[in-house]
Amino acid sequence: MMMAGILERYKPLYGFSDTFPVVSLEEGSTPLIPALRLAQCLGVPGLKVFLKYEGLNPTGSFKDRGMTYAVSKAKEQGAQFVLCASTGNTSASCAAYATRAGLKALIIIPQGKIALGKLSQALMYGARIVEIEGNFDQALDVVRTLGEAHPQQLAVVNSINPYRIEGQQSAAWELCDQLGQAPDDLFIPVGNAGNITAYWKGFLRYQAEGRISTLPRMMGWQAAGAAPLVSGAPVPNPETVATAIRIGNPASWQGAMDAKTQSNGHIGAVSDEAILSAYHCLARHEGVFCEPASAASVAGLFEAASQGRVKPNSTVVCVLTGNGLKDPDNAIAVGTKAVQRVTLTPDARAIGDFFELG
Amino acid sequence: MMMAGILERYKPLYGFSDTFPVVSLEEGSTPLIPALRLAQCLGVPGLKVFLKYEGLNPTGSFKDRGMTYAVSKAKEQGAQFVLCASTGNTSASCAAYATRAGLKALIIIPQGKIALGKLSQALMYGARIVEIEGNFDQALDVVRTLGEAHPQQLAVVNSINPYRIEGQQSAAWELCDQLGQAPDDLFIPVGNAGNITAYWKGFLRYQAEGRISTLPRMMGWQAAGAAPLVSGAPVPNPETVATAIRIGNPASWQGAMDAKTQSNGHIGAVSDEAILSAYHCLARHEGVFCEPASAASVAGLFEAASQGRVKPNSTVVCVLTGNGLKDPDNAIAVGTKAVQRVTLTPDARAIGDFFELG
Repeated sequence: MMMAGILERYKPLYGFSDTFPVVSLEEGSTPLIPALRLAQCLGVPGLKVFLKYEGLNPTGSFKDRGMTYAVSKAKEQGAQFVLCASTGNTSASCAAYATRAGLKALIIIPQGKIALGKLSQALMYGARIVEIEGNFDQALDVVRTLGEAHPQQLAVVNSINPYRIEGQQSAAWELCDQLGQAPDDLFIPVGNAGNITAYWKGFLRYQAEGRISTLPRMMGWQAAGAAPLVSGAPVPNPETVATAIRIGNPASWQGAMDAKTQSNGHIGAVSDEAILSAYHCLARHEGVFCEPASAASVAGLFEAASQGRVKPNSTVVCVLTGNGLKDPDNAIAVGTKAVQRVTLTPDARAIGDFFELG
Repeated sequence: MMMAGILERYKPLYGFSDTFPVVSLEEGSTPLIPALRLAQCLGVPGLKVFLKYEGLNPTGSFKDRGMTYAVSKAKEQGAQFVLCASTGNTSASCAAYATRAGLKALIIIPQGKIALGKLSQALMYGARIVEIEGNFDQALDVVRTLGEAHPQQLAVVNSINPYRIEGQQSAAWELCDQLGQAPDDLFIPVGNAGNITAYWKGFLRYQAEGRISTLPRMMGWQAAGAAPLVSGAPVPNPETVATAIRIGNPASWQGAMDAKTQSNGHIGAVSDEAILSAYHCLARHEGVFCEPASAASVAGLFEAASQGRVKPNSTVVCVLTGNGLKDPDNAIAVGTKAVQRVTLTPDARAIGDFFELG
């Protein structure tokens, strides 16, 4: 059982030729973890909750599913450089797959708004990095301009690259394979909206292939300070602790709205407080440590349950998009409030007393 | 294909009953990634190198393989608390599995010598933490004393707990399943020496089961500043950048020496410079980001190859024990030296010039 990445595993669905230069770090095959305590907390009778823990992809986020395809395609097309704008996860993934392909990664990030772990990744993988005095949306504008100006040299690997969405839909296939069916509801964080678009595409494809007989409701969740899909207008200065979804003008706006409408779903907003509460709850009660943005899906599940939108005896999946280790500063800030931590001499009696071992 | 952790996957080998309370986060099933560029760099004709990337376990290190078994056993035995000393990875894993089991984690760490990401994990998972004014070996002494004083309440889950080693041997089984055979050589970091002990036990068991016909040479690598198995005497004040193996008096000393002797292997030491160089090389050229201690295995492979100890046409596996995101500070320190990073206005022409797009 040599491991394989998503392109090899789902090759019949992707349909590329045997000469296609697959660039892989064996992404995908992420856990689908039952969340029994979370399900109990929600108070919906018979509810089953699973966590699709995408933080265990090679660079720690779901981005790797799309990046394996986009960078493979860039290599096939003879590009020298791959270019992206990023709030962090895309840059880490882009840099890793680029170096694995022997290509050079060029990355544009918003200044001062990228989690520590993600920056450490891009640096270690050897990307060239420009921080701009501006936000993600401005960074993406620059990427579009440069991509159009240098089409031979440069492959843009933001989710405006269709292979990103193509690759990311594998997560929908995989969780259906794991469950043996589609869930009733899929709860998912929404920032640039490529991922909700990809999942919906994946579910539709699996239905068309006869692999699932029902489709889930797509339940997307934005941070309240960066919720253009809820307000209906771009947000010029998005702000949220969930840096991975701090995006004011999503590239896949229409894809997200289509997913919502076609699935009879919902796109809502959750506060930073609700996000951090869900983030802490997942680690504390389920032993699953995700990044703050990921917890928007679970905050959304709490919100939907409180509104009576979650059906008894249904099966729901919450997508946790990235690893908690990406953002140690937020974790220490949140964790320190809740945990007793002292410094003592290495004396067993004193330490036993602190632990109240009696 | 619902995912399963190592206890479910290897249940016939473990032989526990159906009523055993398995506590799992779907650990194991980690990638075995081919390292073609690394193999080329080594200059050994026909060499095949694979990286067993244990950083993609649920809490980001190989510790999860042993912790699922040790914490399940603690739950079965009715313990209230699980207790460990840790340089970081054990505490993260212990805290996650304890909370998943509904038990309380009590953790003793050496002050100021734990990587940022690992501390963030223990805090988030809700462990109670004592930092001691002392090193890992002193922390482990306190754990032994408390464990003996409170045998009913407390389960000690350091690798002196035999279920830790039992669980960790699954990594050897898994990589044999992935390769279809045992490798010729296994390169592995050595700190407290539980892991090299566990792999060797696993290979012997698989041979006894008829699943493999040959055994690998066990090639263990310590950091030069914390190399008691090389010098033959405990190191009172171990020092190395590789904090996960900063251990002066390994609990599984004899297990490591047996693995070395019985396999006709080797235990050597590598400098911090060699460790950091291998660490950077893995990210930069293979797209695989591990923690510094993990890179001791690859630094050891470079050392062994330079000494002519690696056979042409052989297949070697390097174990990468933990995720690079565990230690963002080291990554930023190393990465920043090598990477160009500037701050610019969001102007496509200026950014294109910086990227030398011509």
